[in-house]
Amino acid sequence: MVRPGGRSARVQAAVHTAVRELASEVGRDALTVPLIAQRAGVTPSTVYRRWGDLQELLSDVAVERLRPETAPKDHGDLSSDLTAWAEQFLDEMSSPSGRAYIRDALLGDPDGSNAGQCSAYAAEQIDTILTRAAARGEGTPDVETVLDHVVAPMMYRILFRPDGLAPAYARRLATEVLGPDGR
Amino acid sequence: MVRPGGRSARVQAAVHTAVRELASEVGRDALTVPLIAQRAGVTPSTVYRRWGDLQELLSDVAVERLRPETAPKDHGDLSSDLTAWAEQFLDEMSSPSGRAYIRDALLGDPDGSNAGQCSAYAAEQIDTILTRAAARGEGTPDVETVLDHVVAPMMYRILFRPDGLAPAYARRLATEVLGPDGR
Repeated sequence: MVRPGGRSARVQAAVHTAVRELASEVGRDALTVPLIAQRAGVTPSTVYRRWGDLQELLSDVAVERLRPETAPKDHGDLSSDLTAWAEQFLDEMSSPSGRAYIRDALLGDPDGSNAGQCSAYAAEQIDTILTRAAARGEGTPDVETVLDHVVAPMMYRILFRPDGLAPAYARRLATEVLGPDGR
Repeated sequence: MVRPGGRSARVQAAVHTAVRELASEVGRDALTVPLIAQRAGVTPSTVYRRWGDLQELLSDVAVERLRPETAPKDHGDLSSDLTAWAEQFLDEMSSPSGRAYIRDALLGDPDGSNAGQCSAYAAEQIDTILTRAAARGEGTPDVETVLDHVVAPMMYRILFRPDGLAPAYARRLATEVLGPDGR
């Protein structure tokens, strides 16, 4: 656990910032632990002790970048909310930076916790949309069903079958999971 | 292109074999290019020239290991064929070695061709099952639909949400994609 405001939290913030700054300055492939440590004002051994290696550090930074910054927008009905969210998710995740973050999150993740966090972020956003719809009296699929039939196809194609991913694909998946009767 | 029987093909076979043997002898994390080259009877520079680095070599070997060895078994009807295939796919891909191969295939794959090959293998197997069903006069979904709603959810959960993956999950996905009327 990282105590907010504690030294541990300050080190993490400084190192994450250093990675993001250096990645945009020298490019991701030129990053090294000594370079990052110098920019963050810590010793390389601090980085190795805390993150193990560069790959694990990049994975942690990637998960931070993949954290949604806001709740899904409320368009007034489930179909509009889910369709808009799916389009935005595909747009962000299939962008060059999105693909790089997904890749980094998966690669330096020996115990799978970072990959699990990425999926938890998507599940939280979907849960917000479905809970809002239920409050309106709309029938809804459950979160796992939306993960299986909207999020999973998009993530699978981004990783394994990236050709021709378009907003219409995200819209179709969202519409189909709601069924002909909008549920 | 690798000419079958040519030196290039012999080098590839020897290096792939060396990787598989050494991985089982010393463990995947202890593999190095010099160690692999020595076992394969080639120089390390031959390996670097051909594969770039260890990660790319491991990715190529992983894709080879993920290549289906046989056509899907014919059980006489689409529902039985697709259900049995999905169960076997989940069992193989979610095994420790399956997960390691998927990971390797994705990681050392700068241009995405190895990940694409993994998806192409699944698409070919599904196409065999659907073509067989159509020849029996059965109605079938198309290959992309089965990839989206059977393969993608299994691969997404293996990578991002691995808890509680059971054969019943694969069966349910296969049954649902065929619809209530078995199509």
